[in-house]
Amino acid sequence: MLDVITRDEAVAAVTELAAGQPPETELLPLSQAFGRVLARDVRAGENVPPFDRSTVDGYAVRAEDTFGAGASIPAQLDVAGEIPMGQAPAFSLHRGQCARIATGGMLPPGADAAVMVEHTDAEHGLCLVYRPVAPGENVTKAGDDIRQGQTALPKGRRIGVAETAVLAALGIDPVPVFRKPRVAVLSTGDEITGRTDRPGQIRDINGALLCAALTGLGAEAVFLGAVPDDRAQILRAVAEGVASCDAVLLSGGSSAGTRDMTVDVINELGSVRFHGLAMKPGKPTVFGVCGGKPVFGLPGHPLAAYFVFRLVVRPYLEALQGGAAESAAARVVRVGENIPSNHGREEFLCVRINEKGEAVPLHTRSGVISVLTKADGFIRIPRNCEGIAAGTETEVFEL
Amino acid sequence: MLDVITRDEAVAAVTELAAGQPPETELLPLSQAFGRVLARDVRAGENVPPFDRSTVDGYAVRAEDTFGAGASIPAQLDVAGEIPMGQAPAFSLHRGQCARIATGGMLPPGADAAVMVEHTDAEHGLCLVYRPVAPGENVTKAGDDIRQGQTALPKGRRIGVAETAVLAALGIDPVPVFRKPRVAVLSTGDEITGRTDRPGQIRDINGALLCAALTGLGAEAVFLGAVPDDRAQILRAVAEGVASCDAVLLSGGSSAGTRDMTVDVINELGSVRFHGLAMKPGKPTVFGVCGGKPVFGLPGHPLAAYFVFRLVVRPYLEALQGGAAESAAARVVRVGENIPSNHGREEFLCVRINEKGEAVPLHTRSGVISVLTKADGFIRIPRNCEGIAAGTETEVFEL
Repeated sequence: MLDVITRDEAVAAVTELAAGQPPETELLPLSQAFGRVLARDVRAGENVPPFDRSTVDGYAVRAEDTFGAGASIPAQLDVAGEIPMGQAPAFSLHRGQCARIATGGMLPPGADAAVMVEHTDAEHGLCLVYRPVAPGENVTKAGDDIRQGQTALPKGRRIGVAETAVLAALGIDPVPVFRKPRVAVLSTGDEITGRTDRPGQIRDINGALLCAALTGLGAEAVFLGAVPDDRAQILRAVAEGVASCDAVLLSGGSSAGTRDMTVDVINELGSVRFHGLAMKPGKPTVFGVCGGKPVFGLPGHPLAAYFVFRLVVRPYLEALQGGAAESAAARVVRVGENIPSNHGREEFLCVRINEKGEAVPLHTRSGVISVLTKADGFIRIPRNCEGIAAGTETEVFEL
Repeated sequence: MLDVITRDEAVAAVTELAAGQPPETELLPLSQAFGRVLARDVRAGENVPPFDRSTVDGYAVRAEDTFGAGASIPAQLDVAGEIPMGQAPAFSLHRGQCARIATGGMLPPGADAAVMVEHTDAEHGLCLVYRPVAPGENVTKAGDDIRQGQTALPKGRRIGVAETAVLAALGIDPVPVFRKPRVAVLSTGDEITGRTDRPGQIRDINGALLCAALTGLGAEAVFLGAVPDDRAQILRAVAEGVASCDAVLLSGGSSAGTRDMTVDVINELGSVRFHGLAMKPGKPTVFGVCGGKPVFGLPGHPLAAYFVFRLVVRPYLEALQGGAAESAAARVVRVGENIPSNHGREEFLCVRINEKGEAVPLHTRSGVISVLTKADGFIRIPRNCEGIAAGTETEVFEL
């Protein structure tokens, strides 16, 4: 049996494996790309906005013509015309001239600012301007938002609302994205075959949990069902998962016998890389490679299975899609009570944020899952750390 | 024209309207319910776990039989049998007896704790226990996770990973969820009809942005396209949206002329409720009711359209689905620089969190959208507040 390894070592092992699985990409209409991951850097082929635009309703001007204007001594400009929305102005602005313009209208050549209609009076082809404007005032210049040639979005970025807006602004449609990772999910254990009318049986929580977690990450979950602790049945299912998917997630009872069977099956189809993770929860985790694809044997306790998914499987899926970074930085908060830890494993605890803004651990027993619905996030206690004292700042991560 | 109203007033108006639109519900397989919103409270029809379970591999015991046990004076128990995984024990545990049990196994009647196999030796039908256990130790009792009869999940809760796990644990499949809100999206403006080969034209950002934002909230976006500032075309499209959807989002150029046309169309099909929001960005927002359904006229500037969606349309969609609360509490951080504000409108600013954990505003011009891809969240400056001084704590909200 291989040694227990740390989470950092496990993440290094699985991301290295992902690097050896060259990802497939596809082109999707922008309207279907939400939640997918960009397969290459997006360079701006044009400026956004494409031309200098007014940000107000009013008059396009040469700013210097307004210098010194005031309520009692307005600048007096000739109205050279009106700029139709959505069209290029048919004229240039010369000294002493202005042009009627609406918000979003294209500045005529010669103009470098706009004055708000509220600060003007117009009569007999003349416009009185009561306030000076600086060059560039009330104008968005071509390229102010995104400059032609710049990298607007990096490869590996997940396409959310902001990314969709940038892609639309640049006219990038269809969008090159990574194919969704396909991940097989298999639940094992004599006790979870679903016959809950029989005492001793429990419902399969992990199968649904892992499929939902995959869906939430934009992966395609392929549920292979729940099978009893039968070597031949598990072997057949894992082989099917390896053949048809990018990765396989088994989760089984947490008993030593079940884990041994997982190890045995992985070694029949490939080889076990590590057996045991120095993290709590999550110790009884097995990881192997079969046919070049990762097979994760996750703990049977749902909360442990969740944390190993979150902290080891997710980095693998992200690495498979160009290394999409975590969506949000962890927030730093004080812990509201002393949190002991003395078992030499890296520990992860669900916390809620109390009314004082402090992180308070949600104490749980093994096998309990409903705590996840009450948690605002989780904290990490490093290995060989005796705990966190009340009042200490620590990072709270998103579940 | 109606007065400018505050965001709080706007949210009150749209949620009141939602209360008058009785939501439809449907039953979905649990495997398809991810991201949907629960249409009723979920009560636990059974205990989770359904029976007392061991959380370790070892022996089920009567705890009192181990009291006083130590390394030099082990408790000596008779092994009454082995408990098969997934089955009810065929025997009870009497005084002085223990039973071999695996993690997840069902405790036999009489047992109230489990000892880890590492703390035992077994020979000739006897088990030597080297450490005492307290009643309940290494055991999850029936109902420890979820107690029969309790409300496990509230109506209006969005079904994420944790909720899926709880539903699976309780065997709730299919799941009662609200029908997805159907929301029509229409872009208006002579400048955004998509002919970007012509100077003065820009690409339609808001249409894609709003559809993505709706998708992200689990709503169904129905894109009606981009139409020029033509009263008849806009009227036809809005009427189609009102007829086929729960709500209509128009977003147009930000010029006064475009807004007037939106107001005119809404008043033809129904009536405008407010015109102008005392928030920045987002002032040029129109809201009306046509055929009992809300019609939002959002600003043309994409960032402004986004903030009005986030802060006014989203509460409407949440109210329509039982009032699902915001998914995460805002985090409280210090601001890294003085942030002035003196315009009498409630202001919202994109911020990034710097390496010191401080919120730093991302300054932008009107019409700029790429800032959303660089922001870690946004902050709020109340009306009639002169700004936020560097070092002050403020809430950072999720975009």
